[in-house]
Amino acid sequence: MEKNVQISMLCQLYGKLLTKKQYEFLDDYYNNDYSLSEIAENNNITRQAVRDIIKKGEKKLFEYEEKLLFMKKTQNQEKKIQDILSELTKIKADLSDKQVAIILDEVKKELNCLV
Amino acid sequence: MEKNVQISMLCQLYGKLLTKKQYEFLDDYYNNDYSLSEIAENNNITRQAVRDIIKKGEKKLFEYEEKLLFMKKTQNQEKKIQDILSELTKIKADLSDKQVAIILDEVKKELNCLV
Repeated sequence: MEKNVQISMLCQLYGKLLTKKQYEFLDDYYNNDYSLSEIAENNNITRQAVRDIIKKGEKKLFEYEEKLLFMKKTQNQEKKIQDILSELTKIKADLSDKQVAIILDEVKKELNCLV
Repeated sequence: MEKNVQISMLCQLYGKLLTKKQYEFLDDYYNNDYSLSEIAENNNITRQAVRDIIKKGEKKLFEYEEKLLFMKKTQNQEKKIQDILSELTKIKADLSDKQVAIILDEVKKELNCLV
């Protein structure tokens, strides 16, 4: 996974454990595409200070993931659901029993909501 | 959910964020059914000290859950998978298409592993 995507995901999972500033800067940098200089200017601090706060926040996110593994577990779960979905698509579309077809459609929709 | 069960679950999810002692005492008390006095004796400290450490650990677990909601999310996810499983059981057992029946059995088995 690309580092940016990874940090965005970690931020979603563990963002509430960061300080308000760490969260805001990470969110601005990784999700809202602000540059370090723009964040610095918007907050009246130096570019280096922004960089330090972001680095510290990233470090904390990776430490939480190392301990709790929620990103890894979520990804494993999603992978398994994707596998189940592809199992279900092996069932031929021209099911003679229309009731079965309706239930399977519903089930696929619900599974898709979980990934 | 019963408080004991809830704390056991929170301990599984967030235990790695507790101190070693907090985790050990919570585990002994809630999962291994030791009494406060027994834990005190095994660790050469007072019963009150054990109680304080356990209370502090519990407080931290609830604070993490309040912020991260992983227990709530896990339970919601499990509930949805249970619903999907009961949808699938509506499909009559005497499916004429044996291939479909085999796939559905496999899918149900995989879904059961997720709850």
